[in-house]
Amino acid sequence: MTLFQGLSAFPITPANAEGRVDTSALRVLLKRLTDARVSSVGLLGSTGTYPYLTRDERRRAVEAAVDQVGGRVPVMVGIGALRTDEAVRLGQDAKGAGADAVLLAPVSYAPLTDEEVFTHFATVAEAVGLPLCIYNNPGTTHFTFGTELIARLSRVPHVAAVKNPALDAGALPGSLRALRAASSPGFSVGYSVDWHAAEAMLAGGDAWYSVAGGLFPAACTEIVAAIKAGHADEARALNARLQPLWDLFTEFSSLRVMYAVVNLLGLCRAAPPRPILPLPEDAQRRIGQVLGALDLA
Amino acid sequence: MTLFQGLSAFPITPANAEGRVDTSALRVLLKRLTDARVSSVGLLGSTGTYPYLTRDERRRAVEAAVDQVGGRVPVMVGIGALRTDEAVRLGQDAKGAGADAVLLAPVSYAPLTDEEVFTHFATVAEAVGLPLCIYNNPGTTHFTFGTELIARLSRVPHVAAVKNPALDAGALPGSLRALRAASSPGFSVGYSVDWHAAEAMLAGGDAWYSVAGGLFPAACTEIVAAIKAGHADEARALNARLQPLWDLFTEFSSLRVMYAVVNLLGLCRAAPPRPILPLPEDAQRRIGQVLGALDLA
Repeated sequence: MTLFQGLSAFPITPANAEGRVDTSALRVLLKRLTDARVSSVGLLGSTGTYPYLTRDERRRAVEAAVDQVGGRVPVMVGIGALRTDEAVRLGQDAKGAGADAVLLAPVSYAPLTDEEVFTHFATVAEAVGLPLCIYNNPGTTHFTFGTELIARLSRVPHVAAVKNPALDAGALPGSLRALRAASSPGFSVGYSVDWHAAEAMLAGGDAWYSVAGGLFPAACTEIVAAIKAGHADEARALNARLQPLWDLFTEFSSLRVMYAVVNLLGLCRAAPPRPILPLPEDAQRRIGQVLGALDLA
Repeated sequence: MTLFQGLSAFPITPANAEGRVDTSALRVLLKRLTDARVSSVGLLGSTGTYPYLTRDERRRAVEAAVDQVGGRVPVMVGIGALRTDEAVRLGQDAKGAGADAVLLAPVSYAPLTDEEVFTHFATVAEAVGLPLCIYNNPGTTHFTFGTELIARLSRVPHVAAVKNPALDAGALPGSLRALRAASSPGFSVGYSVDWHAAEAMLAGGDAWYSVAGGLFPAACTEIVAAIKAGHADEARALNARLQPLWDLFTEFSSLRVMYAVVNLLGLCRAAPPRPILPLPEDAQRRIGQVLGALDLA
């Protein structure tokens, strides 16, 4: 089982201006992922614009993805919602459609307390009954999980993993050790923030939850394979090669860059949901130049 | 016309655990506001938990409110949504139900750029066609409006006001002067954050967008009346009397305190939408003690 391990690839969810998911385009993106043998698919993550899609469209996306992936790799589905009852419904929809796991972010408007987030997660985990990954993404949810809360949640049935942001590569080994010591045995600790993820896995992280992996799975699986083989220098060299892409991510946001890339590569025609705008033409031109130089497609 | 002037009172939106709005309870709260002759009602603000309610429930709330208020004071309705098209629909619903103005927050998940927020607001303002108040609330939307962006929006047709957070009372007079100088003539600049709002109006703010005013309209209109009459010392004394309430707001959040208060006063039985939890019993007891000592009900 490769759930919560290795490269978990997060594609965008192509949709039209009204938020109708383009399942044919989604299948094209998913085929790239299974062809490259990623460890798992992370459907409807932040890159998959889950909070901008209706419940019906999210269910359509899951149904198409489960069918397209065909059991080759596990499919984890983002079920975050502002309301607890809505997250439960989204989780039950995902389970009904055949998802293997769910990814739950503490989406907030009014800032939430630790107790509220704990109760939210425990309620959803019990009602859904699929392996659940805690989605710690302060940049979008504006809630930051402390070690203590993650450890407490790791002892809740079905809560099996955390996706932490690898924000500070230097502090990561220490925080990972502290989290391993505090959380339940077998609990998976993985990382997002692509440009620090190689270091996070070298430090002992279980998984890389990757935006770039959603479009460039070969380049990212190569890095993970080098790490698994114990070839740290090779992994670092492969990661350094992608630095121009990481620079674009930090300058324009990985989400906006990914939308530019799918269009530049001709994989599909898709724009991010408004109010998010497509990047201006000069930015798209620079992204095209980086793609050409990296020969990633 | 008292739109975007004086005390704008923001009630909670009582709803059951499934998010069904209790329009009878809402009418009870609104009657308090018109009885106290607030300047306007701010329906479905952050205190009114707008992002937690479906489009249908938001429409039901507006219809009940417009009917209950009966034209005695203007009704401004929060129409914030993650998607631009959804904000447009909510604005058109509010207009169709007879709202006098709309309040638009740049609700975000992926962080938004200034250009994206400008386009979002211009699109909604044009499509809705009601006077629009910019809802600047970084604590919930995680977008902060700069003076330049507000000034640019002030020149967009229908954009008539801004609701700014009075976060730093000391810096407020200077920032207000800068905003007045940059924005279009007649553009209204009002303030939220109750505990600094009296100072904000003394500094020349046009309106106080008030959480406390949604339940204690008499105590708040009294402060605004003293300011309008030029009695700054009296206004400050009246405001200082409410300090125990402001302390509760900063400790527990105004939203959670308001829910405790409606139940303590027996105005209705309502809980905030999960994952937000009712305050623990010891907090409720302390809130009850403050209410009793202030004799606010």
